[in-house]
Amino acid sequence: MIYLGIDLGGTKIATGLTDARGNLLESVSIPTDKQRSSDAILSDIVKVSKQLMQSFRLDDVCGAGIGVPGPVDTENGMISRCVNLSWSDVPAGPFLTKELGIPAFVGNDATLAGVAEMEAGALKGVRNGALFTLGTGVGGAVIVDGKILHGCRPISTEFGHMIVGENFYNCNCGNNGCLETFCSATALIAYAKKLLEDGEQSEPLLSLAGGCTDLISGAHIFTAAKEGDPLSLKVTDRLARYAAVGILNIAVAVDPEVVLIGGGLSKAGDFLLDKIRSAFAERTRYFTALSPDHIRLAQFGNEAGIIGAAMLAKQRLAH
Amino acid sequence: MIYLGIDLGGTKIATGLTDARGNLLESVSIPTDKQRSSDAILSDIVKVSKQLMQSFRLDDVCGAGIGVPGPVDTENGMISRCVNLSWSDVPAGPFLTKELGIPAFVGNDATLAGVAEMEAGALKGVRNGALFTLGTGVGGAVIVDGKILHGCRPISTEFGHMIVGENFYNCNCGNNGCLETFCSATALIAYAKKLLEDGEQSEPLLSLAGGCTDLISGAHIFTAAKEGDPLSLKVTDRLARYAAVGILNIAVAVDPEVVLIGGGLSKAGDFLLDKIRSAFAERTRYFTALSPDHIRLAQFGNEAGIIGAAMLAKQRLAH
Repeated sequence: MIYLGIDLGGTKIATGLTDARGNLLESVSIPTDKQRSSDAILSDIVKVSKQLMQSFRLDDVCGAGIGVPGPVDTENGMISRCVNLSWSDVPAGPFLTKELGIPAFVGNDATLAGVAEMEAGALKGVRNGALFTLGTGVGGAVIVDGKILHGCRPISTEFGHMIVGENFYNCNCGNNGCLETFCSATALIAYAKKLLEDGEQSEPLLSLAGGCTDLISGAHIFTAAKEGDPLSLKVTDRLARYAAVGILNIAVAVDPEVVLIGGGLSKAGDFLLDKIRSAFAERTRYFTALSPDHIRLAQFGNEAGIIGAAMLAKQRLAH
Repeated sequence: MIYLGIDLGGTKIATGLTDARGNLLESVSIPTDKQRSSDAILSDIVKVSKQLMQSFRLDDVCGAGIGVPGPVDTENGMISRCVNLSWSDVPAGPFLTKELGIPAFVGNDATLAGVAEMEAGALKGVRNGALFTLGTGVGGAVIVDGKILHGCRPISTEFGHMIVGENFYNCNCGNNGCLETFCSATALIAYAKKLLEDGEQSEPLLSLAGGCTDLISGAHIFTAAKEGDPLSLKVTDRLARYAAVGILNIAVAVDPEVVLIGGGLSKAGDFLLDKIRSAFAERTRYFTALSPDHIRLAQFGNEAGIIGAAMLAKQRLAH
């Protein structure tokens, strides 16, 4: 059995084929070129998918999944809203089912990253677990009783909009204090810039960014922090402190055995993980149910989207 | 089929019998007298339970449940910790099973209040839902896919220790910012006293408390707030604002269709509910999945514990 996974992002569309265990067999990416219509983009997805499928006997590919950064209606295969692409209510599932000739399912990208970890990664065999994706934004996935939680309505799990305190700037959603404004790459950069504007100094960070604060990236901040730059350490420590609060808030809600840290920022590896574990340990004087060493790094990086989408198809077809 | 429910509290032990639909047939309460040993208290529970069961043909009573304010190990029938009673690792399940001659199960009291609502109350037929119990402390229950979530370890759902901001005093658990320090009766009283100490005035509230700030209760605050007392309104509005944050944080984690407000403070009824709904509506500019009118009052008051414990036995015996 072969499954087709599609990861639709604002910049690129990654597609790939996996076997039933989630091993990635082949993959190809094309630019999203997002100012185009949803029809044009979906047609491109069909084209590249068909090319991929030709490497195999067509009969072997038995289902497809597509992940998008936004809320979806899993039952009807609708992309409810995709802010990045300015899409709303796009029936991607039915369209791909018809054009590809195989059943196609739609999922939220963070949820599908959770599906990938659950089927083939660091959440394999875990009965109750969670995944935080720390990237440009913050997303999440919850596993309860060995099943990924899709939620009752199109919105699903949206860890990034959990409220964990007060912040110096508002979230895009209009609220103040969303986890995303503390724990995303965007948040890291915003806080580093704020400290610089407030008069704090960081030669190493500015030098990494070519002397221009507007070019500071999350990677720069982690690089400088690893080298001991006080400002960058302050910024990464704050992220870790709030990530620990986010994990605690999920722990008191669904009591997971394991919590994973994934998404682009997880490339900072053990440096980030150790900070989050320490911050979590300080917060759990009483709540010892989730031990800090059960907070782990996600197994999959960029390929989580493809694998998760393919495994969504596998899960759906098994029912 | 008849089920025995036991609600073990710090002050009293409430026991009762229900039918399979959760209708309370008979109940009786005795004082806990909590300075006694766990053996003595459990023996008392056996005695009063046997008396209750005598009103029915013994064969009709097919199982028992006991709810406690603290973490439990549902698999092994252990009361892991009960701070109120200074109990730890008490094998109440096996003990009651042996002494009563029927299978007995152990649950956390807030979780069991959720079981009661799910089997016989305002969460009946709800696939994904949650219950907040606002009382001396704050507890919670989560329903996912039509099943109550017991979590992976003894701790289960502990909404009260979700972190939602910074507060002027620390929680008993050692952390700052726990929901319980904003949304419990204890929190209401602490904040009202703080405002009075800071020099704000409230004739109506002081008069209800007989002129003594140490006698101020949650009920006094709601009574004064309903009569328009500015200080009491400030206190109840703050509680509603943070309750809304708590609900939002559960909504982004498990995406419930319905969220209930139960516990002692829910006696304030629509006055409290309307405040929470308005505060929630202000917080959900973007997240419209849970609409404010799907926040509702729990159906059961004090009897939630007995009914939930009895229904736990029913659920467990059905497996």
